[in-house]
This record gives sequence, structure tokens and C-alpha cells, in this order.
Amino acid sequence: MSGTPNTIESYDATLRDGMGGGGLTLTAQEKLRVVHALDDLGVHMIEAGFPASNPKEQELFELLEAERLSVSEIVAFGMTRRRDRAAGEDEGLRTLAECFAPACTLVGKASILHVEKVVRVSREENLAMIADSVAFLAAAGKRVLLDAEHFFDGFALDPAYALDCLRVAAEAGAERLVLCDTNGGSLPPFMRTAFAVVKEALPGVPLGIHTHDDSGCAVANALAAVEAGATQVQGTVNGIGERTGNANLITLIADLQLKMGCEVLAPERLARLTETAHFVDELLNRTPNPAQPYVGKHAFAHKAGLHAAGVQADTRTFEHVDPAVVGNSRDVLISELSGRGTIVEKARQAGIAADEALAQRVVERVKELEHEGFQFEAADGSFELLLRKQAGEYEPLFRLESWRVIVEKHADGHATTEATIKIWIGGERYVRTAEGNGPVHALDRALRDAIGETHPHLKDIDLVNFKVRILDETKGTGAVTRVLIDASDGHEVWGSIGVAENLIAASWDALVDSLEYGMQGDRKLAAASSPRGEGESALHG
Amino acid sequence: MSGTPNTIESYDATLRDGMGGGGLTLTAQEKLRVVHALDDLGVHMIEAGFPASNPKEQELFELLEAERLSVSEIVAFGMTRRRDRAAGEDEGLRTLAECFAPACTLVGKASILHVEKVVRVSREENLAMIADSVAFLAAAGKRVLLDAEHFFDGFALDPAYALDCLRVAAEAGAERLVLCDTNGGSLPPFMRTAFAVVKEALPGVPLGIHTHDDSGCAVANALAAVEAGATQVQGTVNGIGERTGNANLITLIADLQLKMGCEVLAPERLARLTETAHFVDELLNRTPNPAQPYVGKHAFAHKAGLHAAGVQADTRTFEHVDPAVVGNSRDVLISELSGRGTIVEKARQAGIAADEALAQRVVERVKELEHEGFQFEAADGSFELLLRKQAGEYEPLFRLESWRVIVEKHADGHATTEATIKIWIGGERYVRTAEGNGPVHALDRALRDAIGETHPHLKDIDLVNFKVRILDETKGTGAVTRVLIDASDGHEVWGSIGVAENLIAASWDALVDSLEYGMQGDRKLAAASSPRGEGESALHG
Repeated sequence: MSGTPNTIESYDATLRDGMGGGGLTLTAQEKLRVVHALDDLGVHMIEAGFPASNPKEQELFELLEAERLSVSEIVAFGMTRRRDRAAGEDEGLRTLAECFAPACTLVGKASILHVEKVVRVSREENLAMIADSVAFLAAAGKRVLLDAEHFFDGFALDPAYALDCLRVAAEAGAERLVLCDTNGGSLPPFMRTAFAVVKEALPGVPLGIHTHDDSGCAVANALAAVEAGATQVQGTVNGIGERTGNANLITLIADLQLKMGCEVLAPERLARLTETAHFVDELLNRTPNPAQPYVGKHAFAHKAGLHAAGVQADTRTFEHVDPAVVGNSRDVLISELSGRGTIVEKARQAGIAADEALAQRVVERVKELEHEGFQFEAADGSFELLLRKQAGEYEPLFRLESWRVIVEKHADGHATTEATIKIWIGGERYVRTAEGNGPVHALDRALRDAIGETHPHLKDIDLVNFKVRILDETKGTGAVTRVLIDASDGHEVWGSIGVAENLIAASWDALVDSLEYGMQGDRKLAAASSPRGEGESALHG
Repeated sequence: MSGTPNTIESYDATLRDGMGGGGLTLTAQEKLRVVHALDDLGVHMIEAGFPASNPKEQELFELLEAERLSVSEIVAFGMTRRRDRAAGEDEGLRTLAECFAPACTLVGKASILHVEKVVRVSREENLAMIADSVAFLAAAGKRVLLDAEHFFDGFALDPAYALDCLRVAAEAGAERLVLCDTNGGSLPPFMRTAFAVVKEALPGVPLGIHTHDDSGCAVANALAAVEAGATQVQGTVNGIGERTGNANLITLIADLQLKMGCEVLAPERLARLTETAHFVDELLNRTPNPAQPYVGKHAFAHKAGLHAAGVQADTRTFEHVDPAVVGNSRDVLISELSGRGTIVEKARQAGIAADEALAQRVVERVKELEHEGFQFEAADGSFELLLRKQAGEYEPLFRLESWRVIVEKHADGHATTEATIKIWIGGERYVRTAEGNGPVHALDRALRDAIGETHPHLKDIDLVNFKVRILDETKGTGAVTRVLIDASDGHEVWGSIGVAENLIAASWDALVDSLEYGMQGDRKLAAASSPRGEGESALHG
């Protein structure tokens, strides 16, 4: 990899190209928060969008103009001039010229197919559109990047024309040429071939790479381009974007920096990758992908037993990089095979002092429960409660006397649900009835009604996911129902589990664990929490 | 790409390696359904697991032994012999030797780090463990594949030793050497380097590649390996697997076949990719990733305006491949069941005469229902009922007046359930109450009690699986609950679906579909069926 350049520029397209994915939107204020997160991470260039495509973009650029960023540069995005119009008379280009951003990315067609079928201009006019537009913005004092759209498809069809598109932009003063695999269909070997030809045809011109994941190779394509001489990589946080998404900038940065000897970020900033990735998902109201390379919750999860023991002997045995370097942490999955070492580690993370005897008791208890159908891999909340119970550090929220759920489907097709709970808190008996969209929702509401007075933090906890499976593999006891609930307080997400023959009883158990785990922090603070929102369950089942 | 071999063998590891991801489990019956789906797709080898690691695996191998597959070969998976023990005295190897499967994959360590730190045997003993184990199984008449675990990390540390591990396996009679990037940390250039060295050191030995996605390059790494001479690719459906997952076999097959000129599947089978991918996700109770390359719901979604117009002018402008080739479609709202051609085909299979007008009505109805949260990929029973309803060939089993379910958790911790249904069959009203282990079980029993007299075949139908997921993606109507039930009459397994706000109401709808679909054959035969067994539901929820 002697040809690999040392410094690679990172270019984030989350706020423009990334917003093409279905249902993703951010307000101008939220976009500003993303800009600061990217600046804190140390991304070099941030594509903020077209400065006046709508009032929201306008507002964003007004906000951005007033900001001071430590590393990142804001880039305005626009298109080459319209056909048959001078660049100086093109409204879009004038808006870019007048924008505060010192750099502009101009998208121009680099494929003869698009010139003929989509833009429907002559080969010469398309070249003139590129050259005129670049020259106009360069004359206005802007640094200009050309996004050579559909470059690779165009290169496959008519390489000479694709190169002409690049050449006229370079000659007109473009600072950098970004080769785009707009349809995402290319594979790494083709990247290398194309870059070799471009570098020979246009020696010394800085190149960039912009890829999409339609072949599952967006990251690898960008890496191949860097290997072949690109010095800027474009992508989006978590790979969001239309269709299959853009190259995941988070993965790209980690690969380049940790595996290809490139410097993309200042090394101490690399540890912000995980936080940045999760922050953007949270703003977009997306569940972070637990399997995401480097930053996912499971990215450094180990099955107990041999793997976990190996990691303890030498982390290189089962970890490709140190999770702390990217701001992530090691997670050991709890399973039937789990060893005592794993338990001690989990207890340490939860702030529980664990000795060998406790670990042994927990191992035994987990084995018993797994035999009954429990599984703790996705139920970290329930597992921590189990640890606390075994450690004698558990105080139940309440004592259950009984509950009852009635669901009725009426002659008119309408269904109604009513739940009644009878519980004791301290010496006091609470009887509460609630209706709901379904049995779990009704039980949740009745329980919140009873406990909410003494535990206002409950309002912050939402049930965000609910899954049920029948397990018939646990022979002997007959089939059982396993319920998994994910809950969140806006900061953390935790899983809980309930297993019982009866679906509603299993749901109840998981529900109670969800709330007990979520309120642990709150228990000693009592009424110190600040209620926010209604705390209404997202769970309508 | 002149060096690319023409035929590439596909090897599926979903049922073994794929199950390492947190919280994923399948029953033996479900695994059998996956095997048939993979066989229909045309995957060459299917790794089914270790034949006796637990009763479930044992059951799976018993089931598999009785099956006839059209393309796929079942592979048993195990480890090299334990240290200080003759291969013939190793229980695991003997189990493999006695298993019906003609091929075995043996995992052996190919990294000196693991030999020293994890297995803790001498360099020589590890080589002997590999050689003895391969020789033992080869002598037992098995075709042996060596999974050279941690090969790439080992090659980086001590290439000569990593090669020795491969060499002794080849010399002992291994049919194929599979190089594994077990920790997923490698990048494509290193794949090429390593394969070049291996091919020179062991000319003529067939090689395979097994990758993980920790660097976001699992697919690209496998493609690089094929470019460098591998003739077998290993992966899992949808890339499931521990940590960041395995190489996505669905993407790999499409890339190899559509972009690298390889033949992996018979070309006409490629269109099964989308259905297979969704089917496995549904069985695992996972939401299919809409952004998944080739098969995701958004993989061929186009922004309105320029993109859509471009696609109309020439699909190559904005599509890297024709979505129909992989069984996907351009319209995001239409699932693969919704193409009119598919519907006509499905109707033909069900013995329903379908014209274009019927197909169009079904497409419209499916669109409406999908908007409400229905999904028919794993609900073939409900889909056929929908077809019959639209074709006017549907007669309900009964008319519902109302039902009611009461679940109570008592002070002694015991839960009870009681369901009452009121239905009409012909002119007669049936009121039945039944207890059950849970609400669905109780409803099922009450319903069977009412209908069983007139429909004795009902006794043959068991509910074998039950899955629930909360969907909050259906905007506007709030969260809804989706219930999937699998039922079986001992010969056929079918899926049904119910969607409603209320969990029990959704379950009821799925339950009724299960029974109605299962009794279709029986309806005209009336009392001709032979009751066998109790017909007791396996569903205790």
C-alpha cells in the first residue's frame, strides 16, 4: 500500500444526499446540531445543501453563517447551469456565488447516456455547461468541487467523453474532481481501473470518490479509490441515503485510519465515532443498527465461553480493533455457556461487586432460566436485575396481589380492552383499572397510574418494541411464550424478557422488568426527576 | 476479469454461523423450511450445524435425512479432534462420521496466535489435529472442507504457519480449503495478496472464502477472493451472524452472477433472491432491511421527477440492474407478491382461474393491506384466502357474533385464561367457553369446540408457531400489532397473518385464517376425514 496517500479528506453528505432515504427529515436546528457533531468529530467538509432550495435550507445557511466551526468547512451544493443560458444568468449559480460558504460542490453529468437521455443536450453543450459553471464560481472566489455524476457508468460506456467532462472542469478551475458511482453498481476492481486511467489523463488533479451501496460495496469501492489515488472520501453518517444508502462515512473513516495508515481525523477524535453515529440516528428517530461495523452495539459482542476466554487472554484473538479506539465497548453475550468470568465483567459494568460465589450462583440461575426458555442476549435489563437479585441489591418496586385483563370483540367488529391491577407499595394497596389498545398497553397504563405518583421518572420511559415468540423447543414443560420488550428513556435503550405459558403473563413480567430497570437510577432520587412529556407507551399491543 | 472462474459454488452458513447473532433462534421445523427455501433458490451447500450438539440439532438432522433436495447438499459442521486424543476416539468426529451428510466442514485454527493463546497446544499438535481429523473423516467416506479459522490474521502474523495448516489438510485429503476472515478485520487488497500466495503454495487445491463484516467489506472481500481464485463463497442470508454479521450471501450471489460473469445459480433462479431473503427474515421475526442491496424494499426506489423520468427513458440511467432479475420491483409500495404475473402464477398454483382483472384487484388489495401493516411473504395461507375472496371463491367457516377473553393473575402467582365465543354456522348459534394456557390457546379451543363437530379434519391442524411484532412504521394510524401464525396438518405448513391495534384481535384474525386455509380441502368432503390424535394446539400462548 505504498501508493496510499497519508492524509485523506473526509466529506460528509448526510445533510443533503443522506436525506434522500425514505422518511428522513431534520429541521434546520437539528441540521445545525449535526454540523456541530461532525465538527467535533473532525470531518473536513460538510455539504449543507443548496442555499435557497426552500425556506428550511435558507434558514440553515443563515444559521451556519453565524457559527464558528473548529475543523469543518461548510460546502454549498448546486448544479451546473441550465442549457442555453449564460452561467452569470443562472439563478442557482448566482445563489451559490452569493452564499457565505467558501466552497461549492457542483454536480455535472459525466455519462453520455444521461447527457442524451436525461438532460437531452449535445455532447458539446454538456461540456460547456460544466466549464462555464465552474469558471463562473471560481471567478466569484469560490473553491469548486465537481461531482462528476454517473462517472463510472459513463466511463464504461464512453471513457473518452467521461474524461472530457473531468478535463473541462479542471481546466475551468475546479479544485477537485469527485468521481461518483451514482447508481451504486460498480465493484472495486472497476474503481481501480477507472482511477488509473483518470490519473494518467489528468496528472496532479486532486480526486475524490462518492459511492452508493447498491452492490453492497460502497465502503470497499471508496477504499479501492483511495488505494488508486483518491484523496477525498464522501459518505453519510451510518450510510443513510436513498435506495441502499451512501457509503457509510463512519466505517470509511475507521477503515482508512485504523487499517490503511491514512490520517483522516486527529487520532484522539476517532473515539467520537460511536457517539456521533448514535447521535445522528437518535436525531433521525432511527434505531441504531446493532450490527453496524465499529459502532454497533454488537460490533464487539462475544459469545461467552471460548471467545470470551480468548479475548481475556489476548484481545487480538477475537477483536479486529480495540473497541475503545472508536469509542465503543466490548460486550459479552450472556448465554447458556456463559462462564463466570463473563458474569464478573457484566457485574463490574453494572457497578455491582461480584465475587466468585456470586458469579457461580448467577451462572446456575441463568442455566435454570435458559432451560425454561429465557434468553438474555437481547434482555440486558432483565439480566442486570437478575444480577442484583442474586447480589442481594434488589428491592421490588411493588408487591403484586393480582391483575385481570378482559378483551372483548363485539358484534360490531370493535375490540375493547380493560386491565385491573391490585398491588401494594409500602403498606398501601393500589387498585387501578385502565383501558388500552391491547392487553399490554392496558396493563402498562394501569401500572403507571399506580406507581407514577411516587416515581415521576416513569413518565420518561417509553416501551419502544415488543416481540413475542412461542417456544416449543423446551421439552418437558410444554410450549412457552417468550416476550421481549425494548424500553428507552431517551438516552439508553434496554431489553427485558418474560417467559410464561400465558402470553399476557409473560408480557407482564417483561413489562415489570422494563420499568424496574429503567427506574433504578431514579429510586434513590425519589421525586428529583423532571417529568417531561406524557410518557405514553408506544406499545399498543 | 479474465482470471475469474466461471462457476462459483455457494455455501450457506445461515443455520449455524448465522445463528450466532443476538437473540436469533429457529426451531428444527423452521430450519427445515429454510433448507427448502435455499434448495429452491439453488444454493449448492447448506451447513446445517453439528449433528448432535443438542436435541434440536439431532432432530434437524433426523428430519433432513428423510428429505429429498433438488440442488442443495447438506453439510455437517464440526471441529478438529481434541488435543491428545486419537481422531477415532473423538466423540465429535465419530458423530460426524456416522451422520448421513456426505460432506463435513471441519473448523481448524490457522493462526499461531490462537494456537498459542486459545487452544494452547504446540504448533505441531495443532497441525496434527487438523491432519488427523481430515484423514479420519476422509477415510470414513466423507468429503471434507477445512474451515481455516482466523486464516487471514494468522497469515499476517506467521504466513508460513498459516500455509502449513492448509497444506496438512490438503495432504490429508480435504476436498476444499476455506480461508476464513473470522474477526472480519481484513480489507480486499489483503485478500488478493493472501490468495496469490496460497495459490502459488498449493496449486490446484480448490479454495473457498468465508468473511465477516467488521470492516464493512464482507461482500467485497469475498468478491476479491473470487477475483483471486476462490471457487466457493460462504455467507448467510441477509448477512445475519454474530457481531456485524457474515457476508450477505444474497448480495454476493447477485454481484457474482450479474457483475462478475460467474454462474452461481441457474439464471432463472436468481429471481427467487428477494423472496428467499424476506422469507428468512420473517421466520426470524426480523424486519427486512429496506436498504438491503438488490432485495430491499427501497433498493430500486426512485425519487420522483428527474430520476423517474430518466428510468422511463432508459432504465440504465438510474438502475444498476433490472430489479425483476432478482425478483424485486421498481415500485416501493408493491411487494414481490404484487406483480400481476406473480399473482396469476400464485392463483394457478392454488387452482384459481385468474385473469388480468382479478390480478389487478388483488394488487390493489395487497397495496391497501400493506399500507395497514400486512405483509404476505410469510403468510401464504392468508394470501391464498385473499385471492379466493377476490375471485369470489370464498365461503367463511362461520359468522362471528362476538368473543371475550379474560386473563387473570391470582395472588398465588397462578394465571388462568377463559375465552367465550359466540358464532353462527348456517342458521345455528354456537356459544362456547374454553380455558387455555393463554388467550390464543383458549380462543382456539373454544372455536374448535364449536366447529369441530361439523369439520372433523380440524383435529389434524396444529398451530405450530406464533410471532408478534409491534409496527410503528405505519404512520397515521398509530402503532399496530402484527401476528404471524404457522399451522400444519402434518403434511403442509402454512402461514397466516393478522394485523390490528389489539394483540388479541390480531391473533384471532390470524387464527381464523389458519383454520380456514387448513380446512379448505376438507370443506367439500365434509365428514370424510379421519381424525388422528387430539388435534390439540401446540400453541399455548
